[in-house]
Amino acid sequence: MSPEALRELLVQIRDGTVTPEAGLARLSDLPYEDADFAKLDHHRPLRTGMPEVIYGAGKTDRQVIEIFDRMARHGGNVLATRVAESAAAGVVAAHPMAVHDPVSRTIRLRQLEQPALLGTVAVLCAGTSDLPVAEEARVTAELFGHSVARFYDVGVAGLHRLLAQLPALGAARVVIVCAGMEGALPSVVAGLVSAPVIAVPTSIGYGASFGGIAALLGMLNSCSPGIGVVNIDNGFGAACLAHSILNARVRK
Amino acid sequence: MSPEALRELLVQIRDGTVTPEAGLARLSDLPYEDADFAKLDHHRPLRTGMPEVIYGAGKTDRQVIEIFDRMARHGGNVLATRVAESAAAGVVAAHPMAVHDPVSRTIRLRQLEQPALLGTVAVLCAGTSDLPVAEEARVTAELFGHSVARFYDVGVAGLHRLLAQLPALGAARVVIVCAGMEGALPSVVAGLVSAPVIAVPTSIGYGASFGGIAALLGMLNSCSPGIGVVNIDNGFGAACLAHSILNARVRK
Amino acid sequence: MSPEALRELLVQIRDGTVTPEAGLARLSDLPYEDADFAKLDHHRPLRTGMPEVIYGAGKTDRQVIEIFDRMARHGGNVLATRVAESAAAGVVAAHPMAVHDPVSRTIRLRQLEQPALLGTVAVLCAGTSDLPVAEEARVTAELFGHSVARFYDVGVAGLHRLLAQLPALGAARVVIVCAGMEGALPSVVAGLVSAPVIAVPTSIGYGASFGGIAALLGMLNSCSPGIGVVNIDNGFGAACLAHSILNARVRK
Amino acid sequence: MSPEALRELLVQIRDGTVTPEAGLARLSDLPYEDADFAKLDHHRPLRTGMPEVIYGAGKTDRQVIEIFDRMARHGGNVLATRVAESAAAGVVAAHPMAVHDPVSRTIRLRQLEQPALLGTVAVLCAGTSDLPVAEEARVTAELFGHSVARFYDVGVAGLHRLLAQLPALGAARVVIVCAGMEGALPSVVAGLVSAPVIAVPTSIGYGASFGGIAALLGMLNSCSPGIGVVNIDNGFGAACLAHSILNARVRK
Amino acid sequence: MSPEALRELLVQIRDGTVTPEAGLARLSDLPYEDADFAKLDHHRPLRTGMPEVIYGAGKTDRQVIEIFDRMARHGGNVLATRVAESAAAGVVAAHPMAVHDPVSRTIRLRQLEQPALLGTVAVLCAGTSDLPVAEEARVTAELFGHSVARFYDVGVAGLHRLLAQLPALGAARVVIVCAGMEGALPSVVAGLVSAPVIAVPTSIGYGASFGGIAALLGMLNSCSPGIGVVNIDNGFGAACLAHSILNARVRK
Amino acid sequence: MSPEALRELLVQIRDGTVTPEAGLARLSDLPYEDADFAKLDHHRPLRTGMPEVIYGAGKTDRQVIEIFDRMARHGGNVLATRVAESAAAGVVAAHPMAVHDPVSRTIRLRQLEQPALLGTVAVLCAGTSDLPVAEEARVTAELFGHSVARFYDVGVAGLHRLLAQLPALGAARVVIVCAGMEGALPSVVAGLVSAPVIAVPTSIGYGASFGGIAALLGMLNSCSPGIGVVNIDNGFGAACLAHSILNARVRK
Amino acid sequence: MSPEALRELLVQIRDGTVTPEAGLARLSDLPYEDADFAKLDHHRPLRTGMPEVIYGAGKTDRQVIEIFDRMARHGGNVLATRVAESAAAGVVAAHPMAVHDPVSRTIRLRQLEQPALLGTVAVLCAGTSDLPVAEEARVTAELFGHSVARFYDVGVAGLHRLLAQLPALGAARVVIVCAGMEGALPSVVAGLVSAPVIAVPTSIGYGASFGGIAALLGMLNSCSPGIGVVNIDNGFGAACLAHSILNARVRK
Amino acid sequence: MSPEALRELLVQIRDGTVTPEAGLARLSDLPYEDADFAKLDHHRPLRTGMPEVIYGAGKTDRQVIEIFDRMARHGGNVLATRVAESAAAGVVAAHPMAVHDPVSRTIRLRQLEQPALLGTVAVLCAGTSDLPVAEEARVTAELFGHSVARFYDVGVAGLHRLLAQLPALGAARVVIVCAGMEGALPSVVAGLVSAPVIAVPTSIGYGASFGGIAALLGMLNSCSPGIGVVNIDNGFGAACLAHSILNARVRK
Repeated sequence: MSPEALRELLVQIRDGTVTPEAGLARLSDLPYEDADFAKLDHHRPLRTGMPEVIYGAGKTDRQVIEIFDRMARHGGNVLATRVAESAAAGVVAAHPMAVHDPVSRTIRLRQLEQPALLGTVAVLCAGTSDLPVAEEARVTAELFGHSVARFYDVGVAGLHRLLAQLPALGAARVVIVCAGMEGALPSVVAGLVSAPVIAVPTSIGYGASFGGIAALLGMLNSCSPGIGVVNIDNGFGAACLAHSILNARVRK
Repeated sequence: MSPEALRELLVQIRDGTVTPEAGLARLSDLPYEDADFAKLDHHRPLRTGMPEVIYGAGKTDRQVIEIFDRMARHGGNVLATRVAESAAAGVVAAHPMAVHDPVSRTIRLRQLEQPALLGTVAVLCAGTSDLPVAEEARVTAELFGHSVARFYDVGVAGLHRLLAQLPALGAARVVIVCAGMEGALPSVVAGLVSAPVIAVPTSIGYGASFGGIAALLGMLNSCSPGIGVVNIDNGFGAACLAHSILNARVRK
Repeated sequence: MSPEALRELLVQIRDGTVTPEAGLARLSDLPYEDADFAKLDHHRPLRTGMPEVIYGAGKTDRQVIEIFDRMARHGGNVLATRVAESAAAGVVAAHPMAVHDPVSRTIRLRQLEQPALLGTVAVLCAGTSDLPVAEEARVTAELFGHSVARFYDVGVAGLHRLLAQLPALGAARVVIVCAGMEGALPSVVAGLVSAPVIAVPTSIGYGASFGGIAALLGMLNSCSPGIGVVNIDNGFGAACLAHSILNARVRK
Repeated sequence: MSPEALRELLVQIRDGTVTPEAGLARLSDLPYEDADFAKLDHHRPLRTGMPEVIYGAGKTDRQVIEIFDRMARHGGNVLATRVAESAAAGVVAAHPMAVHDPVSRTIRLRQLEQPALLGTVAVLCAGTSDLPVAEEARVTAELFGHSVARFYDVGVAGLHRLLAQLPALGAARVVIVCAGMEGALPSVVAGLVSAPVIAVPTSIGYGASFGGIAALLGMLNSCSPGIGVVNIDNGFGAACLAHSILNARVRK
Repeated sequence: MSPEALRELLVQIRDGTVTPEAGLARLSDLPYEDADFAKLDHHRPLRTGMPEVIYGAGKTDRQVIEIFDRMARHGGNVLATRVAESAAAGVVAAHPMAVHDPVSRTIRLRQLEQPALLGTVAVLCAGTSDLPVAEEARVTAELFGHSVARFYDVGVAGLHRLLAQLPALGAARVVIVCAGMEGALPSVVAGLVSAPVIAVPTSIGYGASFGGIAALLGMLNSCSPGIGVVNIDNGFGAACLAHSILNARVRK
Repeated sequence: MSPEALRELLVQIRDGTVTPEAGLARLSDLPYEDADFAKLDHHRPLRTGMPEVIYGAGKTDRQVIEIFDRMARHGGNVLATRVAESAAAGVVAAHPMAVHDPVSRTIRLRQLEQPALLGTVAVLCAGTSDLPVAEEARVTAELFGHSVARFYDVGVAGLHRLLAQLPALGAARVVIVCAGMEGALPSVVAGLVSAPVIAVPTSIGYGASFGGIAALLGMLNSCSPGIGVVNIDNGFGAACLAHSILNARVRK
Repeated sequence: MSPEALRELLVQIRDGTVTPEAGLARLSDLPYEDADFAKLDHHRPLRTGMPEVIYGAGKTDRQVIEIFDRMARHGGNVLATRVAESAAAGVVAAHPMAVHDPVSRTIRLRQLEQPALLGTVAVLCAGTSDLPVAEEARVTAELFGHSVARFYDVGVAGLHRLLAQLPALGAARVVIVCAGMEGALPSVVAGLVSAPVIAVPTSIGYGASFGGIAALLGMLNSCSPGIGVVNIDNGFGAACLAHSILNARVRK
Repeated sequence: MSPEALRELLVQIRDGTVTPEAGLARLSDLPYEDADFAKLDHHRPLRTGMPEVIYGAGKTDRQVIEIFDRMARHGGNVLATRVAESAAAGVVAAHPMAVHDPVSRTIRLRQLEQPALLGTVAVLCAGTSDLPVAEEARVTAELFGHSVARFYDVGVAGLHRLLAQLPALGAARVVIVCAGMEGALPSVVAGLVSAPVIAVPTSIGYGASFGGIAALLGMLNSCSPGIGVVNIDNGFGAACLAHSILNARVRK
């Protein structure tokens, strides 16, 4: 069921030409592929506009490789995050076109034409140590079809580094800000730009940063209203939110 | 400095016809009004696309009334949240056109023409007890110029209530989901729609809900990627994020 | 003292033909076996309907092997959970009939005839990474004499995968639901079935899942009333609760 | 749709005489009543075997009274928990047959014949201060059609008080144990009986009991395997779990 | 023992003309006044350079009044913090020269000549709601003999308000920064000035600010090194630290 | 059963002249009095050397009065802690000899001859605000038959106040130290005396004291080994531990 | 300064024949040995009745070996806890009479005659996994001159194992109870014996035991009053408290 | 821009001879060096009086080496903290004059003449295990141009070791106190000296020290007012604060 078909169906339900029951039945009849230990939701891109991505943590190498394989056979782009070195080697052995990026711990396989770009996503990080998270966001957003502008190491302790980027920053349609320690950067950025700001706390910091809790709380309590926060170190989730924001703009 | 002027300036900086230093100087020279105990940031709407709103909690009645008064004199729309009954009475006495809504604990004064609507914001809540938070989001979003569709009491314990709303829900361009207790509703919704989902944990629940921590953690850890989370009970913040998402669509 | 004898005794006490003192004395005189560092409670099955199981974590290999050995000599079924590879090798070397399952980290030795099945236990898990916990529940329940139906990778982000299992799920007499991240699956399931739902939070997730706390809180605060929660990653405990529910049905 | 009809449908789906799509459509077409601020799920008893109950906390008096009224008009038994004195007065004024119990903070209206009893539920509490929680469990279980045996003030500091109740306790088919402070009572009870044990931590205690966290953790970590834990002070939830356990026994 | 005598003694010990034992004996022989329920440490100013101040919280009105009275009789300046309205009334009744400030909840009695000023303390706060804490710091610092410059409502959401104060801020010898919510202001300030920065988290904020924990963690984890943090809402403690910094400059 | 009889019985069991079963039966046959909502453990003094005391918190006035009454009729000393003013008034009305102490929130009724004193208990508190907890310890210890020496307001900020008490402190056989804030006093005391030190964290403090958690953690982590910690604000529990220490000395 | 001399001094101070100042000077003049990175407090045994013991965690092997060496040269008994295997090897190489116990991770060197025993310390543990903590307590108590009776694996899930030990347990003068998981054992024991009970939470458990927090909170909140709690896994601290209790009995 | 030039500029702004806009433009035009993954803030020393230091944790060896290299080329002193052994080897290979100190995990390169000393910083630590943190503070302070006096292993369990150091301690102009476990040492020290006290909680301790939380809370809640607390294990931050205190004294 293509997105157009899906939208058509919903319209018909709203107009009363299809009963809700019939509509729900067709909706519930969505396809998935059963890999015994996993049920791959190939319909997800059509339903939510977001491809299913393999979350590598907590899976055995064999599971990562097999799921990557099944997804690749469907012909779309494939992305795996939090991939161990050994699993990555296995995937790349089977799919020589797949690209493994050790900094962001991702593997990606591009099998689709690059769509028309939907606008720039700015990815900021406060310090060099936040790079793996910022890069996970960048790789994900790029595979989803967006162009990304990077602004790295622009933390608030040297505010002029950020201020000097303001004009370039103003051109982005969505801003992702990764920061550890006290997580103050999103507050400052959101006071300066009008684009939606997505905040990603990172687990960088020592002592009482408690693995990112300090940054997470800082971002949730920002005095700049309207920041959307995602999980600690979740660069992938930030890119998904950016995608749903930009995607909505195009689709409707 | 109008938003057009501001954008023009940034473009000139990017093009090199204005040096960054000169641009920053003009940017830093933003106006604010000093009320001794408060510095009102009247330039904020131009800079971030979001009006400054009075956060009533922790302020004395006199402070709320005086700040409301100063902001009203600037001629824009004025919104105050978390307003005590006594402060609200004082504001309404001075501004008979101001509307006090006790459920959402807001006062609003509309002084501007309604702009062309930017698309619908869906506001969902899981249970009746989440109403004050959902209504704070609704009132805020409406004053910011958006139309709001309400889907209340559609929690996951009776999933058919939500499924029956799917067609209507699919028409929204941004979805705000308020839920307390385990905060599972955003996960389910984000698996069904393609619009950006903003999750608001509420402090509703008993025992080990810990004033909303359970819902907050649930939303941050959602298995549906790409949910933007705001602070506990922060319906206002959710509306701000929705506004920045929709606003960006129009402006660019 | 057989379960029949035990019940007989309690009836006599209730009827006044045996004094409570005399009854308690007989009750307190329960047998156990002293292994210096452990006191094996061989009477436990008769008293609580649940066999004593070896909890491998925190024990040395030698201790696991020796306790397994002593319990095996009593002729009943023996189960050890959280067993290290090295300890498992030692046990299997001594008991070639013992089965080591590395996914669930269990060793089991079946020495008793399979009793008449007491009804089906459904074991669900939200994602592939929850498998070790779900399998610990399955292995335990099966050794306790129940048939188990597995429903794996049916998380709420793709709700249709769960909805498609509803008819099969409806046939289970007890439902065990394992989920990490936000732990929303039990809430959804408990809104759809009438069998008792046992929720097992898993430590799967990243960032603010805090090793399963997010899922645990989500399950405790479920808006679907009547869910029984066990400890994080405690698939074994869930199976024990399922057993006590089904066992009670048969016995009385 | 009666429970028999529901089961019949599920059987047909399993047998292939009804397609899953058609079955889901009929399932999704469940009735609910829209009260603007609430969507009453009258079908819930048929679907999950558990009536929808009004959770009074966080609702205005007017909301409690109106929802009670709507539910009463459906002719079933009605229960409201956590009801403020003022809301209770309003309900009783409108429904003189409704019974308000200030200790358990419940109002109940019995409109159905008492069904055949399904077996005894034992409700224990460790100390006198745990009474409100224990009584909430008792009132709920009785309205759901069970007989309840009470064992109050039998905490582990004077173990002989519990041991003296063992024979009576052994006759119960489900055991609910409410305890605050260190929450040790369920561990001791579960080592002595074979019926399923449901543990309810209460917020009783001082200092480092942290509003019931100490008892909650104690119960989750019980060395007696197979205890199902519900939320802090959630006597109602414990009774629901007991009901689903006993109900399953009868129905299947 | 005057501070000069104290220093002289320590020098003699270092030089060997007084044995450590003899020195310690004289040191231990410090005076205090026993008020049954309190032991007033009148020697404290000489020993640590900081007057003993009455902490009003947790004391009965009678205790506050009596301790204030005893301290006033010694002729020095007297300060009481966290004073309830009723206790304040009692103190002012007895000491008409005492000044009660309801915003900072302090009472002060100045009985000493103002010493030569030791340099300016800057007191900043992020928002209007932080005023009580900032004012507690200001009142304390002034009574200790410092001049205070106030910079209120200069939070990071409107950074230009802070940047406009930079020149004046640069003249302070110690900077106290009070902020609630995410507590980001000290990080930004410490990146811009060279004076020591003392950070005071306030309990202002909602939802996940957890009574100031978010701000506290933010300040402890600041990416600007060298910030000294005091307890939540502890404006008094911040002024004491400022005093010890400035005092040391003069004395040595 | 007197303590002598109890000890005699245990000796006989050890010597084999009484079987364990018979002994346990006699032991389990301990008396208690059933007051419907409470089961009074009158045998407790004989079994553990410690009288049962009424914990007033969480009980209604009527319950406190009735339990006090029943215990008073047994002729021993009676103590109730955490008693509300209204409950205290009711008790004193019925028992004119009962003494109500509002500072420690206790009521006590002495009906037994004072036994020979078992040695002095020293009770220290760090500040005046800790008085209610310290006094609860004192009143309890005195009713249990010990003489108490008080050392109040001797916190570590003015160490000489403590050092001056050292000789008197050295005469105590057990030392109870109550302290809030950082809870450092027990560490210092335990480094100076050889008597057992019992530490009572109090909920006194502000900001990040978190209701006594800071003091509790401080005491548990003391660098002076061998401190026994009780619950926050639990002066009663400290006196019980002191009693069991001194009592053991006399009895054996 | 021997303990007799110390006591004599304190008596003289109390009697006024020595001034407090002179007394304090002599007291402050206590000897210690400066090892650059450590200041060994050889006077500690005389002052507090407790030898200084080497806490191995966080020290390099070289530091442990050197401190052990210096203490051994003083001729007393020497104990080191939490000693790594490699440090232990180094110590034993230098001191062949030193005994390394890998279970309790201690090294001990006995150089003093065994004093007359001061009474039995009972050491209980709930499960086999608690052994390292219980053994640390045992080894420490024995080196301090006490006889120890062990009661291992007597957790509350099989209460009869504990009840069978009651007569032997009743002979102990101090009872140390080590338990992880929910930490319920001390509550039960303290309800059955009159000797002082020292509770040691262990870090044993899984999921929500949080490294011993569950057991710690359980023990602090025990419904059996008068339990002294020490830090998690702190068997050494428990033995120190036991020693100070028994030691006081002998000395005075 | 030298510090003198910077101050001159701020004065001109205050005097009105330079507009704020022009001043800010010059201020924003601060230099930094862009190393792709890092933006080195060479202007920082002039702006805040504190050199930028490399925080090694979370950076790859290559990043540490490259940043060290770039900073060294600017000719100032260079300091890196939390440096892994392998990164340190790489730095020393490239800069033979750089000194690697494994205890404090720092590398330092001195390229500037030692400035006139600004006064002594006292660094105390409570126990030998706190050495790495204390040494990080010492190395940092010395490189910043201060002389450091060390007082190690002077914890409160043997108070005489601290008291004997009082005269020497009194000569310091700033006091840094590092302590783990209960963190009581700063409270005691701050009650005895008049210099500013900076408290550094360390992660040393076991059980409920929770990686330094106990010490952190102890220090924040100190009953000695005016202690500035830095992050857990943050010896570097403490030295920075000490530097800003002493530096301010010289400069103004």
